[in-house]
Amino acid sequence: MAEIHKQLQTDCVAIGRFPLCHLLLMNNTQYPWCLLVPDRENISEIYQLSKEDQLQLAEESGWLGEFMMTEFNGDKLNIAAIGNIVPQLHVHHVVRYKHDALWPDPIWGKVTAAPYSSEDITALKMRYSILEKHGLTVI
Amino acid sequence: MAEIHKQLQTDCVAIGRFPLCHLLLMNNTQYPWCLLVPDRENISEIYQLSKEDQLQLAEESGWLGEFMMTEFNGDKLNIAAIGNIVPQLHVHHVVRYKHDALWPDPIWGKVTAAPYSSEDITALKMRYSILEKHGLTVI
Repeated sequence: MAEIHKQLQTDCVAIGRFPLCHLLLMNNTQYPWCLLVPDRENISEIYQLSKEDQLQLAEESGWLGEFMMTEFNGDKLNIAAIGNIVPQLHVHHVVRYKHDALWPDPIWGKVTAAPYSSEDITALKMRYSILEKHGLTVI
Repeated sequence: MAEIHKQLQTDCVAIGRFPLCHLLLMNNTQYPWCLLVPDRENISEIYQLSKEDQLQLAEESGWLGEFMMTEFNGDKLNIAAIGNIVPQLHVHHVVRYKHDALWPDPIWGKVTAAPYSSEDITALKMRYSILEKHGLTVI
């Protein structure tokens, strides 16, 4: 099992595991915002994954994205693999609203701290558990 | 064939066609920067594509990303589906360098105009034609 980069551990809360990826919740109440982190060593780019893993990542991303947009009633999903600061491959999934503070700009590098309470996190884990039908194990 | 959104037509130069996606070059010399635009009507989100198209997009993205990083000797690839302004699904692929002007920030919304010459574009089409082995037709 690949260790999750310290910065991701600091910024996020672990929600669960898909067959390939760790599902992390960005600990910021301002946006529904998750990361998929493939459990593979020394991978910075999607194309460095095996072809099989690339397709599995696409599937997990599709399930997660559709769930988040439905569950949080978003206007637009922003998906990105950037990684200019944290080299371990992580794919952002951010639900955006036309009335949100940064719309229509991307949010990366512009969001201030706004952590969830432990009650919030417990409640969110319940909501994300719908993804168990797509192979997620909530932790 | 889905029509390409006017804003993308204004900002980009068509390089070619993969089996699923149009390959567009962002007309900006500051970064090697391409868009994949699936040739499907009324799609704003990756998860709205059929499962088969989602996997094809993942394949085309992998081929394009690996090619760009190798050909342009990049430090990091930034991939993103944002679409807060242009609703037609388009997936950015941007080669980044540790010495580039905006590193490590994302580039969206921060890049000024710097168009290619027609000679540049002809030369770039030649370089991208390596992707013909992955089903690209250069136009």
